Amino acid sequence: MFPRPVYRVTTAGISSRSSPRKARNSVLIAATSAPWTAPLTESQHILTLYFLVIAGLALFAGFVRTWTTRSEVGSRFRPALVARLCVTAVASLSYVLLIVGFTLAYDHTGSTWVPNAGAIMTMAPRFMDWSVTVPLLTVELLAVCTLFGAGVRKAQFLAMAGSFLMIFTGFLGTFVFGADGDASQLYLWGAISSVFWIFVNVVLIRAVRKSLPVLTPESAGLLRDATILLLCGWVIYPLVYIIPIFAFGGGWTTTIQVTLCVADVLVKIGFGGLIHRVAKLRTAEDVRAGDDVHSEAIWISSVKQSDAGQPREIYLAEGAAVHPNRWRPPTSSAYASAIAAEDDSSTPIDSDENLGERRSH
Amino acid sequence: MFPRPVYRVTTAGISSRSSPRKARNSVLIAATSAPWTAPLTESQHILTLYFLVIAGLALFAGFVRTWTTRSEVGSRFRPALVARLCVTAVASLSYVLLIVGFTLAYDHTGSTWVPNAGAIMTMAPRFMDWSVTVPLLTVELLAVCTLFGAGVRKAQFLAMAGSFLMIFTGFLGTFVFGADGDASQLYLWGAISSVFWIFVNVVLIRAVRKSLPVLTPESAGLLRDATILLLCGWVIYPLVYIIPIFAFGGGWTTTIQVTLCVADVLVKIGFGGLIHRVAKLRTAEDVRAGDDVHSEAIWISSVKQSDAGQPREIYLAEGAAVHPNRWRPPTSSAYASAIAAEDDSSTPIDSDENLGERRSH
Amino acid sequence: MFPRPVYRVTTAGISSRSSPRKARNSVLIAATSAPWTAPLTESQHILTLYFLVIAGLALFAGFVRTWTTRSEVGSRFRPALVARLCVTAVASLSYVLLIVGFTLAYDHTGSTWVPNAGAIMTMAPRFMDWSVTVPLLTVELLAVCTLFGAGVRKAQFLAMAGSFLMIFTGFLGTFVFGADGDASQLYLWGAISSVFWIFVNVVLIRAVRKSLPVLTPESAGLLRDATILLLCGWVIYPLVYIIPIFAFGGGWTTTIQVTLCVADVLVKIGFGGLIHRVAKLRTAEDVRAGDDVHSEAIWISSVKQSDAGQPREIYLAEGAAVHPNRWRPPTSSAYASAIAAEDDSSTPIDSDENLGERRSH
Amino acid sequence: MFPRPVYRVTTAGISSRSSPRKARNSVLIAATSAPWTAPLTESQHILTLYFLVIAGLALFAGFVRTWTTRSEVGSRFRPALVARLCVTAVASLSYVLLIVGFTLAYDHTGSTWVPNAGAIMTMAPRFMDWSVTVPLLTVELLAVCTLFGAGVRKAQFLAMAGSFLMIFTGFLGTFVFGADGDASQLYLWGAISSVFWIFVNVVLIRAVRKSLPVLTPESAGLLRDATILLLCGWVIYPLVYIIPIFAFGGGWTTTIQVTLCVADVLVKIGFGGLIHRVAKLRTAEDVRAGDDVHSEAIWISSVKQSDAGQPREIYLAEGAAVHPNRWRPPTSSAYASAIAAEDDSSTPIDSDENLGERRSH
Amino acid sequence: MFPRPVYRVTTAGISSRSSPRKARNSVLIAATSAPWTAPLTESQHILTLYFLVIAGLALFAGFVRTWTTRSEVGSRFRPALVARLCVTAVASLSYVLLIVGFTLAYDHTGSTWVPNAGAIMTMAPRFMDWSVTVPLLTVELLAVCTLFGAGVRKAQFLAMAGSFLMIFTGFLGTFVFGADGDASQLYLWGAISSVFWIFVNVVLIRAVRKSLPVLTPESAGLLRDATILLLCGWVIYPLVYIIPIFAFGGGWTTTIQVTLCVADVLVKIGFGGLIHRVAKLRTAEDVRAGDDVHSEAIWISSVKQSDAGQPREIYLAEGAAVHPNRWRPPTSSAYASAIAAEDDSSTPIDSDENLGERRSH
Repeated sequence: MFPRPVYRVTTAGISSRSSPRKARNSVLIAATSAPWTAPLTESQHILTLYFLVIAGLALFAGFVRTWTTRSEVGSRFRPALVARLCVTAVASLSYVLLIVGFTLAYDHTGSTWVPNAGAIMTMAPRFMDWSVTVPLLTVELLAVCTLFGAGVRKAQFLAMAGSFLMIFTGFLGTFVFGADGDASQLYLWGAISSVFWIFVNVVLIRAVRKSLPVLTPESAGLLRDATILLLCGWVIYPLVYIIPIFAFGGGWTTTIQVTLCVADVLVKIGFGGLIHRVAKLRTAEDVRAGDDVHSEAIWISSVKQSDAGQPREIYLAEGAAVHPNRWRPPTSSAYASAIAAEDDSSTPIDSDENLGERRSH
Repeated sequence: MFPRPVYRVTTAGISSRSSPRKARNSVLIAATSAPWTAPLTESQHILTLYFLVIAGLALFAGFVRTWTTRSEVGSRFRPALVARLCVTAVASLSYVLLIVGFTLAYDHTGSTWVPNAGAIMTMAPRFMDWSVTVPLLTVELLAVCTLFGAGVRKAQFLAMAGSFLMIFTGFLGTFVFGADGDASQLYLWGAISSVFWIFVNVVLIRAVRKSLPVLTPESAGLLRDATILLLCGWVIYPLVYIIPIFAFGGGWTTTIQVTLCVADVLVKIGFGGLIHRVAKLRTAEDVRAGDDVHSEAIWISSVKQSDAGQPREIYLAEGAAVHPNRWRPPTSSAYASAIAAEDDSSTPIDSDENLGERRSH
Repeated sequence: MFPRPVYRVTTAGISSRSSPRKARNSVLIAATSAPWTAPLTESQHILTLYFLVIAGLALFAGFVRTWTTRSEVGSRFRPALVARLCVTAVASLSYVLLIVGFTLAYDHTGSTWVPNAGAIMTMAPRFMDWSVTVPLLTVELLAVCTLFGAGVRKAQFLAMAGSFLMIFTGFLGTFVFGADGDASQLYLWGAISSVFWIFVNVVLIRAVRKSLPVLTPESAGLLRDATILLLCGWVIYPLVYIIPIFAFGGGWTTTIQVTLCVADVLVKIGFGGLIHRVAKLRTAEDVRAGDDVHSEAIWISSVKQSDAGQPREIYLAEGAAVHPNRWRPPTSSAYASAIAAEDDSSTPIDSDENLGERRSH
Repeated sequence: MFPRPVYRVTTAGISSRSSPRKARNSVLIAATSAPWTAPLTESQHILTLYFLVIAGLALFAGFVRTWTTRSEVGSRFRPALVARLCVTAVASLSYVLLIVGFTLAYDHTGSTWVPNAGAIMTMAPRFMDWSVTVPLLTVELLAVCTLFGAGVRKAQFLAMAGSFLMIFTGFLGTFVFGADGDASQLYLWGAISSVFWIFVNVVLIRAVRKSLPVLTPESAGLLRDATILLLCGWVIYPLVYIIPIFAFGGGWTTTIQVTLCVADVLVKIGFGGLIHRVAKLRTAEDVRAGDDVHSEAIWISSVKQSDAGQPREIYLAEGAAVHPNRWRPPTSSAYASAIAAEDDSSTPIDSDENLGERRSH
Repeated sequence: MFPRPVYRVTTAGISSRSSPRKARNSVLIAATSAPWTAPLTESQHILTLYFLVIAGLALFAGFVRTWTTRSEVGSRFRPALVARLCVTAVASLSYVLLIVGFTLAYDHTGSTWVPNAGAIMTMAPRFMDWSVTVPLLTVELLAVCTLFGAGVRKAQFLAMAGSFLMIFTGFLGTFVFGADGDASQLYLWGAISSVFWIFVNVVLIRAVRKSLPVLTPESAGLLRDATILLLCGWVIYPLVYIIPIFAFGGGWTTTIQVTLCVADVLVKIGFGGLIHRVAKLRTAEDVRAGDDVHSEAIWISSVKQSDAGQPREIYLAEGAAVHPNRWRPPTSSAYASAIAAEDDSSTPIDSDENLGERRSH
């Protein structure tokens, strides 16, 4: 039942949106007003702006962290890294849109901030953000499970499609079909969204349940924590969006904005941090088991998990040095050692005998 | 038959563009109106904006993904990587132009959004984007085929030139010669564009057909899928652009925008993802065959395809240490081990005897 | 007692903020006026702008420095690096907000600059910045202490939560609850903030005290210096914020801004530089003790601390080459050495006997 | 004879620039009007914008390509890479200026676009771009010739100074001294510019001629092609700039803009691509000759030119491990292996005997 | 005696700044007018803009160059690299401010450009830039001298503090205390600034003089050239700033701007290039002497200075593999080689005996 807000942007609300709306239209039970049409006090305005900016800065810091630590994860678990990087990058950009939208959406009149026609942009960018980042969060989780090959590709496809449709149907209900205050439409799309929400939960929980017994106890514990954090975080969103049904006003609008900022940081930074630790731990386990090498030592909280290693020296296939050792025209003084180089060109560097000779002396 | 739209921006349409246009001028069969001159409802406006933004964010995420995974592809297939990186970068920038253009193009009047003089910029940036990205998409496909040397350069040149001319002639018909509603011009340029479209298809299909029997079954299967996705994706565009011939209105304009957003994401992200997998698979095959080394293990969907390797240690040509081992003036206490270093400077590190001695003890 | 400013933005102050305010409302002892409501002279305006811009540029230069030297620190101490990178990145962005805010906040009237309604944005971005960067500064310090495992994670959680609440309660007192000039609220929130300030100090000092006897004398000395610089730097902020209680005017506003700029640079760049040296030194000690390898030599002020090393060549687990050495279809002339490669494919590169043979000749 | 345009911005032209200028002032033979003062039709406006944007996107894609392929060129030829990177970066930025300038420079009046006072910025950014990029193009060419040491530094200095003066004198003639329509000034500066143009040609051709016999036939062929493309591309510019002498109007202005866009892409992307191939080929030749090692295999169009190699393991000078193996205070449980590490610290890892022992067993 | 300009912004000048000022107030000998209050002709305006933009582009190209060549300098001389990177980054940003400031600072009235209230921003950003970059330039020079340890840290502190105070006192005199035309203040601050100027010169020259006899002749020659270029470049600035004392007008303002652009490019790009060569040469000397290894060959102007090398393989301390070789739960089919991996896990990869066995066969 993720996003099931049922606003009613009455035509009056639209035409008279430039003046503060204090009386709540409550003829129909399901008739609600969009939270962004409520005027804010000075305190509410600065508090909302504060949380929008620090959430944006935190997500940006999360992006910088992910980028800087990208070498800590083996190439096997890189899809989790890529998803996390995209999540933080996209969310940072969305918060730029939100902050600009919030700054432009309110007019300062006396000691209140009155929303203008652009106030919809204090909420809509959130849905645009989620449409891209929620599917990526499912990828992030699945990438550190033990599914592999076609299995993981199928699970990713189902989870991405399901979570996109979950957000998209919520968006349709809120901004497209439910915008005329028709409560039945809102309930319909809310219900459809909920179906997808349950579906995605099932896909993810099944994948995690399959993985837990196969992983080491440490990895399994972290994976379980990460899953719980993600799925519980997702419960916040519908809870927040029920608010407009029974409450309206600047205080509630501020509550919604602040809660969503906190939830975004928890889910995107907190969950991402746990997944990063799972990926590091599993990389270290692969190194210790000899399944892979990693070019730097893996440390978690100052405890070394695996040593740095370098791969074995590879001897190319016999004829892999495609190019015949071609004669080289005199290059005069272009490089100081030209004469020596010419001499050497007669003993191709690729002949194994030659090398063996040098070594076995 | 790629872009053959036949709009007629009647002079009336231009002079009275600032007021909502509801009646469709249908005196001539071929006379059409540009889709960007139709007013939008609230729902259509927010829905179009939603798709523009999420397509832009998805393309940006595609750019981040390509950049982060660039080490997974061997240097042989790097041209595919470069093309994909440029495609996603250029498309992301174009969507910024589109979103800014869309935001500025409509004036909010009551409950409708009326297009103003800048509305052409809700469509024109798409052609600018395609003029650069469509030729790069052909490069991306050809770079993982088995053509090589002058052959691949010729195929790339033909495909790039053909696909640029396909877009450019479509642009000429739509915005330059066909802008005065002259249907014959529109049909003419549409036909020319179609010729280039067929030509590019032929070039690409021939290259792929030559490659399939030479590749391993897995690579060949993926390459076939990628080709089908690309060429089918390209069919969407002319289908969408036929719409203005027989329909006009906000609903159709929204349909066009949404479909093009979806098609762009499918072709640029979906196709790019498949090509990335082909390139990884072929890199792994080269490693397994001993044709190349790769510094990290290649994993696809948690299945290891090849081990990490490091190249053989290279002994430079005899005299390659160009610089004579020069005497070094006393550097006093600049480095703590100055005295030791001086001692050592008499035994040049490059003399093979010296090294052999240390080793063979 | 970190930020305990007690402003009183009188309702008169709010309603008449657009005209220069010269008379100070001093009926109540605790009644204060926000420093951003004072008009500035030409000199004060250019001097403040000068310090805002050079502090912003210095923080940006600090970001560039951190980014460029990121390879100098071992993976064990990377959390310190990440924190420093995020601190400088977030602070740079905040100074962009501050500079834009400052430029827009004053109107040029005759030879004075009169603050307008947006003048709050010359101070509020500082609290947004600190809410993210102060917790990260505690991470930076803890990451080079000798705590490890769950211990370091607990200390980081406590220090981050405590320092965030320290800033957040200061923000609540200044901008939300204390904005109506109610002195009791201001003292209340100032006191709560102070409690968190003391708590964070205790957490950090305990961690450092535990580390000092375990570290080498050099590392311990630098760590002690860094801790003193950080904690003394944090004392400046409340000192500065006491100013509004007993003084108001353009001169004092300029003093506040300049002092905060200098303090930000000292704490974020100066402290960060010391931590970087500790991290380098401890990395070098790990290399010398054989606990880790580092791919480049570590030099501090032109004195070499440890040699470059490369990790041991790793032999993968027996069966780690997952892929059976598959037969490869003829690839014709795609690669020049195709025939040779085929021949070689029968002798798998992973068989140890084969390798041993080549070597032991 | 590179840029010798002879415009005459008549004082009338300046004062009445805000109204469309249709009549051409042709009293004096040499009196010309600046092309940016001509009004454009709808078609001309959108066509020019199209070419400006796609040229900008193509140059940006060229920058992305250069950046992504920077590891393909050996450190010897890196100056060519750096020059190419700077050329594409600077040109991309200039096209941003040009596009913004073009968007602001014309007012939409009926169905024509009338240039306003800012129209000079549709042309001036080109000269600013060229002042930086043309000298860099000469560096790019010289860096893959066979000059070395002081010789190449002298040639670079002469070519950079000459080409900067070529552009600068052209700029002086066009925008500074010739702006008052004084034809004699225009011819004078055009002639001076031509002298520098010939001088730069001589410097470059001499360097290339010296290189050709020394290079391998393949490299020499590519270098010859690149030189021809560059020098022929440079001929386009003066040809285009002769236009204003005998023609004026929107059509000609569009022709000038489109041709310059095409020429910029040809010279900066086409020439750069050829130089990249020369640099790769010469790097591969150095590897094959044993003059250098390169960490990845070099492939050109799917043909392998040289194998990946890694440098010989270096033994540092005897006493190079500056730091005496210092005693390390007990580090308790900071690292799990503390006890083992202490034991080991008595056997310094740098002593050769120790190592020899381990090896020679 | 670096910046000693003595402007007098008369109160009349400030109040009537919006109209062109032609008469120069010359009652007092020392009374001067700020150069940014002079109106410019068309030619002067475009010429100044031209130099601002190309200087900005050149500094940006310098940033790109420094970034791309950062691997050419050993970690010992990285502080020089970091300083150069910060200098070019900060200067590029400042020129963006300058160009924006210049564009907004003049109103187009007839054929002259009249400065408005924002004209101070055509000069002030230069002082902000210098406050950060001049101290960094001293770091750049000291980093390639032979000072080390506490010595270099002390010299850096003195030179940075001195050069910051040199700029800051100049700024105080020009924009803060001397802005009211009080000549005695101007001379006072000019004299203080000169004292710091001399102090910094002494610090730098002493460090260079100490280094010259210790360096190789080549390095010493380059270091001497770089020092001369820097210190002579610094002489230009006070010379330019004397101009306002005896001259006023658009021509002189243009002269000042152009000269400062040229000086900035010379000092920041020219000096930086020489320092880069010194750092490369000294890195190569360290490699040849066996004091360090460098992963790529160092070439200067196509002459090889040192070979690529890789560090010795490091054997970790006995117990350095912290983690006990833990038992691993069955991972089923998650990785294809699971069974083999389990078998192997009983023979820990870290045991030296095991390895020795494999080797000594």
